[in-house]
Amino acid sequence: MVELFSIPFFTFDAARSVPILATASESADSSMVLASVLLSLVVVYLASKIGGELCARINLPPVLGELVGGVVVGVSALQLLVFPGEGIAAENSLIIKFVELTTTLTPLGASAVFETQSEVISVLSELGVIILLFEIGLESKLDELIRVGPQAVVVAIVGVVAPFAAGTLGLVYLFHLPIVPSIFAGAALTATSIGITAKVLAEIGKLSSTEGQIIIGAAVLDDVLGIIVLAVVASLAKTGEVQVINIVYLIISAGTFLVGSILLGRYVIKPIYENLVGEMKTRGELLLTALVVVFILSYIATAIQLESILGAFAAGLILAETSQRSKLEKQVIPVADLLVPVFFVEVGARTNLGVLNPMNPTNREGLVIAAFLIVVAIVGKVITGFTVFGQQGDLKKLAIGVGMIPRGEVGLVFAGVGAESGVLSSSTEAAIIMMVISTTFLAPPLLRIVFRDPEPTASETSEAGG
Amino acid sequence: MVELFSIPFFTFDAARSVPILATASESADSSMVLASVLLSLVVVYLASKIGGELCARINLPPVLGELVGGVVVGVSALQLLVFPGEGIAAENSLIIKFVELTTTLTPLGASAVFETQSEVISVLSELGVIILLFEIGLESKLDELIRVGPQAVVVAIVGVVAPFAAGTLGLVYLFHLPIVPSIFAGAALTATSIGITAKVLAEIGKLSSTEGQIIIGAAVLDDVLGIIVLAVVASLAKTGEVQVINIVYLIISAGTFLVGSILLGRYVIKPIYENLVGEMKTRGELLLTALVVVFILSYIATAIQLESILGAFAAGLILAETSQRSKLEKQVIPVADLLVPVFFVEVGARTNLGVLNPMNPTNREGLVIAAFLIVVAIVGKVITGFTVFGQQGDLKKLAIGVGMIPRGEVGLVFAGVGAESGVLSSSTEAAIIMMVISTTFLAPPLLRIVFRDPEPTASETSEAGG
Repeated sequence: MVELFSIPFFTFDAARSVPILATASESADSSMVLASVLLSLVVVYLASKIGGELCARINLPPVLGELVGGVVVGVSALQLLVFPGEGIAAENSLIIKFVELTTTLTPLGASAVFETQSEVISVLSELGVIILLFEIGLESKLDELIRVGPQAVVVAIVGVVAPFAAGTLGLVYLFHLPIVPSIFAGAALTATSIGITAKVLAEIGKLSSTEGQIIIGAAVLDDVLGIIVLAVVASLAKTGEVQVINIVYLIISAGTFLVGSILLGRYVIKPIYENLVGEMKTRGELLLTALVVVFILSYIATAIQLESILGAFAAGLILAETSQRSKLEKQVIPVADLLVPVFFVEVGARTNLGVLNPMNPTNREGLVIAAFLIVVAIVGKVITGFTVFGQQGDLKKLAIGVGMIPRGEVGLVFAGVGAESGVLSSSTEAAIIMMVISTTFLAPPLLRIVFRDPEPTASETSEAGG
Repeated sequence: MVELFSIPFFTFDAARSVPILATASESADSSMVLASVLLSLVVVYLASKIGGELCARINLPPVLGELVGGVVVGVSALQLLVFPGEGIAAENSLIIKFVELTTTLTPLGASAVFETQSEVISVLSELGVIILLFEIGLESKLDELIRVGPQAVVVAIVGVVAPFAAGTLGLVYLFHLPIVPSIFAGAALTATSIGITAKVLAEIGKLSSTEGQIIIGAAVLDDVLGIIVLAVVASLAKTGEVQVINIVYLIISAGTFLVGSILLGRYVIKPIYENLVGEMKTRGELLLTALVVVFILSYIATAIQLESILGAFAAGLILAETSQRSKLEKQVIPVADLLVPVFFVEVGARTNLGVLNPMNPTNREGLVIAAFLIVVAIVGKVITGFTVFGQQGDLKKLAIGVGMIPRGEVGLVFAGVGAESGVLSSSTEAAIIMMVISTTFLAPPLLRIVFRDPEPTASETSEAGG
């Protein structure tokens, strides 16, 4: 028996969909998966560019347009780009329907294709945040981050403790919710979504400002704190008690990883990279060698139960110190343009605006709690800016606080884990989701306003920015 | 019941692998899929760069090194990057084993992660060929292609008819094989693998030479002819007769697609693209708008049962005529550097060198047939160069023929379809695979030799190229 090259072979899989061959395929047909991935990417790029361009024209951050574009093509509206989950199957995806209509894909085969296509888009989206955080690390200055480190630590800790305490206590004493769901909702208020803030900062050219570096530093720490808080509340929800050993493990591994990767980077990776890349003769040597570093650190971060994006950010910081930095930055831009929109459009597409509809009576209790959570979410982070000490007088403290507002996907994980474990009522869950939607969509325009120079009067401000 | 954002949400999926949460996951855990995709990409990039750099140093084409690098990490040797199929499961993948060792992934969950990771890598690889063919189209000149069109048509037709006739008749009369498997093996000799030739041509800077354009034009036509031949022989194998209606349909749709997309491109897509891109204000406007065109044409090509890469090539030809061509080309390079190595390394990784082992008695009959097929495969394509008429005297006719030699993945589909339908004996199947391996790996160095200027003597040639 001759072993094969493990056919069906890919580039020619189109041949498998020639009618005379079609009957053979049972599981997800690769050429149909490719076809639906191609269409999904077309939808993603159209949504991100149309949304981004419209926002740029009315002087709003393009990334907001990408998110809104995602909402328009997603589960809330057109249902072009949807993901398998509660009540969502292949027949809910207009893209899959279109593929069925225009190719030999049958409703029977559609389900497997839909699952695989969604997984592929999700991985592309995850690669998108990885590249985004790598790009942000590459544009950051490690020395500057270390210099603002103490301030960033204070901003991060205050930004976790303040909303958590205010949210939990408010729900217990004002809304008379039980203690465990209150802690859960409070915890969902803690972690900043670094992606959205960083994208806006990059768009307005403030990423390497002192404010920008404090925000990025604090948001990275927030991410670590968020993982620890999640571990605490999830263990609380599950067993009713906190597993101290896990918390200690997470804190130690996070600290070791950040310090270790930066030391390793400066004294091992940086010299090797600089010498190796100079010796290489084939195309793509800068980019691919960099991506090897990015992906290895992202993998290590995942393996020690942190987030992959922390590794990508660390890789960016390391390679920012090499002499190839500016050439590398130029090559990362097209890769980021390719992958990052998948992330923002997916965030928008997964957002279900149904929970915001006040016509639906089940949403009303949630709406009241949501209004409270939104206020706490905004105030609890805005105050963090005013904890910054020891900096020059012209620092925009308000801007730092506003930069910490967006919760993005992080808050959703709390809602999801809480709902899965049965701790959260559906109204509290909906309230958390509303808080996430509001902070995510409010932060980009607010951030632009607070970063604007104070000189122009209100009537002139519409001409600034862009 | 509140509908969710269809969690588990992605960027934070790492949180799901925190031990206290790990028990919940049953199907493919997204953070583990991401982790194994990251490791696979690290392996792909290391294999492609180490292989490519070594080949560049001994004056061989880098793409050959990428293929060999793929073989080293693939099913034939290290088994780092393997794909599900005959006798290959999660426990055969060293990457999955490593993920199990270093994360919370269990052997139970490994199978789903392996399947999904393989699908993701395959789609990335398919996107890689799409980008490669787009880049090749972008570097081609439509007018030049049309000018050499008649010659390319003759090269393509002779290059299909000659090896098919010689292969089939030889197997029937010299090896006394039955007629249907002989036709199958003959058909496997027909279609050129455009990717490998085009990559070598680009590496040696001959893509836009007259020879290069004839090769590309003929290889594209070959691809279409290959699909038609496959439809014929597959229908022959299945029903014993040829379904004329399908053949007619394929010929009409291929012709309509190629002519239609070029007309549409010149008179509709080109003016729209040029005006639209000039008006856009957000980052990535050139690249993403181009990719929308590429992916739509690739989708249409797939939908009408041609190959996606034909659409990508047509999109490249169309956008090559726009005034943004050179800026766009620069932005496509990093994207190609990111995705194209996945394709070449995957081709190598799927190659099972086991069929070449003469120690295995079952391979011996195959080896004799293979030797015959390899000779026919090379001679049958090399002669095509000498059919070129009406060109200037200094045309390298031998180079054109050599450029048509590699069969790559196309031949494997014939072997696969033939084996599936039970028409091919395992020795004939192995012989086809050996023919594909030999032509694919032989063509890159041969192509470099025949394109070399005739002046330098043998002792000097080692300094040329690079």
